Amino acid sequence: MTSSPTPSTSPLLTDLYELNMVQAYLDKNEDGQAVFEFFVRRLPARRGFLLSAGLEDALQFLETMRYSDDDIAWLKSTGRFRDNLLDYLRDFRFTGDVHAIPEGSVCFPGEPQLRITAPLPQAQLVESRLINVMHYQTLIASKAARMVLAAPGKILSDFGLRTAHGAEAGNYSARASYIAGFAGAANVLAGEIYGIPIVGTMAHSFVQVHGDEMVAFETFARARPNDVILLIDTYDTEAGARKVVELAPRLKADGIAIRGIRIDSGDLIAMSRKVRGILDAGGLNDAIILVSGGINEDVLQGMMREQAPIDGFGIGVNLAASIDVPALDCAYKLQDYRGTPKRKLSEGKQTWPGRKQVWRTYSSGGQMAGDTLTVEGDEQAGEPLIVEVMRGGRRVGPAPTFAQMRARAQADLARLPEPLRQLQQGVDYPVTVADALKTLAAEADKHTKR
Amino acid sequence: MTSSPTPSTSPLLTDLYELNMVQAYLDKNEDGQAVFEFFVRRLPARRGFLLSAGLEDALQFLETMRYSDDDIAWLKSTGRFRDNLLDYLRDFRFTGDVHAIPEGSVCFPGEPQLRITAPLPQAQLVESRLINVMHYQTLIASKAARMVLAAPGKILSDFGLRTAHGAEAGNYSARASYIAGFAGAANVLAGEIYGIPIVGTMAHSFVQVHGDEMVAFETFARARPNDVILLIDTYDTEAGARKVVELAPRLKADGIAIRGIRIDSGDLIAMSRKVRGILDAGGLNDAIILVSGGINEDVLQGMMREQAPIDGFGIGVNLAASIDVPALDCAYKLQDYRGTPKRKLSEGKQTWPGRKQVWRTYSSGGQMAGDTLTVEGDEQAGEPLIVEVMRGGRRVGPAPTFAQMRARAQADLARLPEPLRQLQQGVDYPVTVADALKTLAAEADKHTKR
Repeated sequence: MTSSPTPSTSPLLTDLYELNMVQAYLDKNEDGQAVFEFFVRRLPARRGFLLSAGLEDALQFLETMRYSDDDIAWLKSTGRFRDNLLDYLRDFRFTGDVHAIPEGSVCFPGEPQLRITAPLPQAQLVESRLINVMHYQTLIASKAARMVLAAPGKILSDFGLRTAHGAEAGNYSARASYIAGFAGAANVLAGEIYGIPIVGTMAHSFVQVHGDEMVAFETFARARPNDVILLIDTYDTEAGARKVVELAPRLKADGIAIRGIRIDSGDLIAMSRKVRGILDAGGLNDAIILVSGGINEDVLQGMMREQAPIDGFGIGVNLAASIDVPALDCAYKLQDYRGTPKRKLSEGKQTWPGRKQVWRTYSSGGQMAGDTLTVEGDEQAGEPLIVEVMRGGRRVGPAPTFAQMRARAQADLARLPEPLRQLQQGVDYPVTVADALKTLAAEADKHTKR
Repeated sequence: MTSSPTPSTSPLLTDLYELNMVQAYLDKNEDGQAVFEFFVRRLPARRGFLLSAGLEDALQFLETMRYSDDDIAWLKSTGRFRDNLLDYLRDFRFTGDVHAIPEGSVCFPGEPQLRITAPLPQAQLVESRLINVMHYQTLIASKAARMVLAAPGKILSDFGLRTAHGAEAGNYSARASYIAGFAGAANVLAGEIYGIPIVGTMAHSFVQVHGDEMVAFETFARARPNDVILLIDTYDTEAGARKVVELAPRLKADGIAIRGIRIDSGDLIAMSRKVRGILDAGGLNDAIILVSGGINEDVLQGMMREQAPIDGFGIGVNLAASIDVPALDCAYKLQDYRGTPKRKLSEGKQTWPGRKQVWRTYSSGGQMAGDTLTVEGDEQAGEPLIVEVMRGGRRVGPAPTFAQMRARAQADLARLPEPLRQLQQGVDYPVTVADALKTLAAEADKHTKR
């Protein structure tokens, strides 16, 4: 086949080396308890913090991961694997424990956003997809949070589906940005599967089809009378705004209100002022102005500084592909096997071993004051961030609602120290490694035969 | 729900404005023949050409697009749409024509990679997903082509699943890079759904689990005796290479050959030389050296220049997220409606109207010499690039095989003018707009009431 019928969630969405390793583990009955942690290694340029996201999709993956008969048959057909592996996969169920930093939490590099504790073959088999889910959603939530901080009180919407990297990116972008504080998304499927508010206006093609802009506006308004937002820049933006003013009384006579207009090209700040003037002079003081096209957090900040009369922003590829930083340096690393702490010593890639916990302290003013990374069970000042979310393959408690995740994000963003709220990289947030963790690292190195 | 069971291909993976517009079109029985074209607007920095990809997935989407009862029920539940729209969607079938530049072709900005000719509501409803499919695969194929040009004769493999933007990006990255000339991908699912060769070694965690690197190597080799590639940098790369040499005779006694080693950290050029020396001195002259970690086309070029003794490269996020250029500026624009040419005049976003064809000429040496963009039916010198691929909703002829698409890409890359083969932006390739198209644009402007 040259094309795929569906972007699949098959457990074969994994790197071949996971199956290679599990073949070797099964051959030697190497199935002791393993601990892996997912974390971001370092912050990219201009980033001061992360907003964790993706956890619920990760847990759903773990709960539902099954190899179909077709999957097994295909694996067998490759001639790469023996029956002991195929039998193991046929009966596969994830039976491990998961600890995590809740979605919508601010966190920092080195802090485990997700910990898997499971028999070694299980913990290894889930690696590729867990990273795939957690990385992208954390990337987008972190990017969206910067936009939310840059434009307080504004309506921000995810318009990024078309240039998101495939179908799932379109859905996950809507989800992650909504957690971070966006108002909604243009992607209708995000409305269906997540219940995220969907938003949308019209395209330039709609105006072009009618040739006459006035006819296009009136047709659209009468077809969608409860949500009339007109795109006014297909030919000449100011002329478009004047037509909206001219049209308004005719619609009003039939009980239809114009909710607002959208501008998608040109100098958005200058044009929003002109259009605001035209609308206000025409009595449309309540009509909102939405803009789209090239919006990112720096543009948002500039528009806020200029006090551009813009009410909302449709944000596309800068959000959904996180253009300036399209990936985070992250890892899913073995921390402990059969009770022995482990770490990798590869050049420049050393990690801290063991099951970890993060403790966060706050200043008297309620701002985040610093985190301490330590081994689980080593109590420190502050509040622990990592909680148990799955035990023996089953969720502990109900999944949080979006309202809860959004509230958490809002609260955490409000408690960020001022330098980290800036778009430019400020001072590094202090994450201290506790003595107990340093001791464990020394112990891990002792156990390693180099 | 807070999480999605599956990255869906539901036709609700679309922007709300498409449904808004179709509601208005149906209200007015506005269902004339519409022509839309997908094209990239301009090349990003450092890019000299595009490699078109995604067409087969786009066609499959068009062939199979159906609204389920659940989709209709959900749309109804939003209260946004009337029965005429819901009835229309319930019976939806794409019945239009598609013309396209074949996958694996080199093409340039402004050249339509895909043209839809269909009743207006149909042509509008497919917009968001068509862009989503074509944009990402063209992005990745174009990026992969740069890597193929930078490292002729080397084994390039897609290791990007984990930091690709979601599941579908992982699959599409494998597909698009394979079309461009990659040897294979680590993503097992890409093997199952596309038949792409899958490649994989082992992770650092495998070595850490065993603690003793030698034990890990031997266990792995005996579990996967036909494809023994050992990761030697978990602790100390040179020591790892010496262990491989030490292990080789013991495996050979049992008929197992070491196919190669992988290095994933440190100074890859310097280390590959040291490791090559150790392997050769140990009689393992046939063992290949694979490297991974931070590989992009510039790194590849540097390694080729330095003649580093590296046989293959695993390329991750730099490929699958196209890190330096994570998105292309592209559009799906109305070109003609009911036989009248259309174009958008928004500031800085003017387009050429009408059904188009691209003619390509070649120099006497066989190199691409220049393209002419004109209206369909206006014959020019050279060869036409755009062919009919779907008529009345059904494919014209069988889908090309990967072998055919790869051959096309290879041939086109070989015919690129030398300056465009460079990683730095060279001279612009000449794409000339024919007089017939300029005349049509003037006509389109005449029809437009501003």
